Amino acid sequence: VKTVRLALPERPYDVLIGAGVRRRLADVARQARAGQVVVISDQQVGALHAATLVGELHAAGVAASLLTVPAGEGSKSPVTAAHLWDELAQSGADRQTLVVACGGGVVGDLAGFVAATYARGLRYVQVPTTLLAMVDSAIGGKTALNLSAGKNLVGAFHQPEAVLADLDYLRTLPPAEYETGWAEILKCAVVADAALFGRLATQRPSGAGLEDVIGRCAEIKAGVVVADERDQGARAILNYGHTLGHALETTLGYGALSHGRAVAWGMVVAGQLSVRLGECAPEAAAAQDAALQAYGLLAPPSTIPRWEKLAGALAHDKKRVGGDTRWVLLQEIGRAVPGRSVPLETVRTVTEEVMAGARARDPRT
Amino acid sequence: VKTVRLALPERPYDVLIGAGVRRRLADVARQARAGQVVVISDQQVGALHAATLVGELHAAGVAASLLTVPAGEGSKSPVTAAHLWDELAQSGADRQTLVVACGGGVVGDLAGFVAATYARGLRYVQVPTTLLAMVDSAIGGKTALNLSAGKNLVGAFHQPEAVLADLDYLRTLPPAEYETGWAEILKCAVVADAALFGRLATQRPSGAGLEDVIGRCAEIKAGVVVADERDQGARAILNYGHTLGHALETTLGYGALSHGRAVAWGMVVAGQLSVRLGECAPEAAAAQDAALQAYGLLAPPSTIPRWEKLAGALAHDKKRVGGDTRWVLLQEIGRAVPGRSVPLETVRTVTEEVMAGARARDPRT
Repeated sequence: VKTVRLALPERPYDVLIGAGVRRRLADVARQARAGQVVVISDQQVGALHAATLVGELHAAGVAASLLTVPAGEGSKSPVTAAHLWDELAQSGADRQTLVVACGGGVVGDLAGFVAATYARGLRYVQVPTTLLAMVDSAIGGKTALNLSAGKNLVGAFHQPEAVLADLDYLRTLPPAEYETGWAEILKCAVVADAALFGRLATQRPSGAGLEDVIGRCAEIKAGVVVADERDQGARAILNYGHTLGHALETTLGYGALSHGRAVAWGMVVAGQLSVRLGECAPEAAAAQDAALQAYGLLAPPSTIPRWEKLAGALAHDKKRVGGDTRWVLLQEIGRAVPGRSVPLETVRTVTEEVMAGARARDPRT
Repeated sequence: VKTVRLALPERPYDVLIGAGVRRRLADVARQARAGQVVVISDQQVGALHAATLVGELHAAGVAASLLTVPAGEGSKSPVTAAHLWDELAQSGADRQTLVVACGGGVVGDLAGFVAATYARGLRYVQVPTTLLAMVDSAIGGKTALNLSAGKNLVGAFHQPEAVLADLDYLRTLPPAEYETGWAEILKCAVVADAALFGRLATQRPSGAGLEDVIGRCAEIKAGVVVADERDQGARAILNYGHTLGHALETTLGYGALSHGRAVAWGMVVAGQLSVRLGECAPEAAAAQDAALQAYGLLAPPSTIPRWEKLAGALAHDKKRVGGDTRWVLLQEIGRAVPGRSVPLETVRTVTEEVMAGARARDPRT
């Protein structure tokens, strides 16, 4: 079992990575003197894993119950959050209740937000079941809901008591979920670790190699979060590829394009913008694109949105500063810089070129 | 103009009290380098005051717009919060947007919660327009929504940039709102300031006397908040009278009983519980009750709920610890103690006695 510590000043916590680490949950609940545990999951993960988790808690003598929401991005909504608030009230939740988010990024963001806001803050544990959640979304205390105007427009910073990344869960992970995980892992390497990028570009890791890569990505994420918990500067580098990625998802409708492919296309655009603005050599962007291609992340979207629609979605990006969208740009493999302003015309030109390239590669056209 | 400083470690801020202090808002917005100001109000206060406030901002060269919700406790809901999140997105809000809560406790709690959670936290200013909000709810950073299971079950801690308590607003305040303000002012004196209580019991203050009293209550509130920002102990004394008060409001339906009368009856019950448990002399509770009576706060509720319903509402109190409702008890006028456990049978006996007394006093029975 690998342990990555988030040494936050107010309250440090650990990310545990390894097969079977979910069984530590009963100890976490006892250490927190939790009156009861409420596990929040989605209906797919609930049937596969969360019901087992609740059973294991019962067997360990911990009072626990399960709340589920429909699977998919649509559940990361104000309506579902309100439903969960009511369910928590019905289950007699109080400040001694421990919430557990068992699932992927959607469940982690949603359950984290509900925990952050019920009774002005319940303690919670992240039990990520997807590769993406293990390397990224379960770590760092960002919680969120989507609005129709854009992803993650609502949320709170609320750090978990612990993150238990149980590698057993990866055995049942669908291929599309692996894809999304690889996109975030490659992003992590591209912005922060050239050695990791080299390793990933050489061979797709599995088994113990995968465990190492997850641990390394968790370390990178932890380091960035500790340096900038409230996302006021440095943490923004993790948003590389997400500015256009979110706009693509908003424009095409959540789910039309996997999050992984949306981020991958966003990385291609961000890389080209970096070259165009003289921030990085064309070779760096090309190396990035080749790796994304090798991991199968550059299949074109089923529809390519018009620029006007993308521009409208970009106008709602919550990282805007005074009406100006800020971009994370690449400097070289392993190093990126946040907070850059880019002329909208340049964004348009590069995006249209990249999208035209995507269309040209589509076997259906 | 009186200034009360909230010397919080992370970021201090001021409460300004005086006629015309709302005009400082443009300066606050400029100091915060706000890109735009979004004023949130209700339809009543919006027409009376918030539209003027927006006009004054425009005149001072600050970009500002107004969002309104229906007046009344019903707007402190997840549905209205979701509506305001969408409206903020439509108005192009970003992290440079400054939210202004212009209204009473409902608007302050709702707009504060929306500001706390939009883009994981927008800065905001409280511009309280009621006596209650000036002495209590606008100070201290508690934000909240109600659920059907109980008041304030959802919320966040989010401190404002400033509180501008403009006494001009009190000139148009309806009598029922004064009533609610007096209940909180008397509560404040009863739990924290015997001298203030003596002054209030002698004569109902007005004019400059009222300004002094508001300033003193703001000081008391500020002191308690600074000692216990996250409500983990000492701050709970401000909840005196609110445990049963909230249960009465939940059981009777918000609005059937003014918040002031609900708190006043809750204070009577808390006082009698304190006497019964030997925490305070009967004379202290009697002095409290006489003052509540003198301020016209002990008119009986139109319906007196059955104990079983009140007990159900108490079971959802968010200050419960491990399934046990905690009470703030009186020790003497000017001193209270939080976190006390009281046998449910004692609560029942005392509540039924007090409610029977209320019924006996009702001229209609």
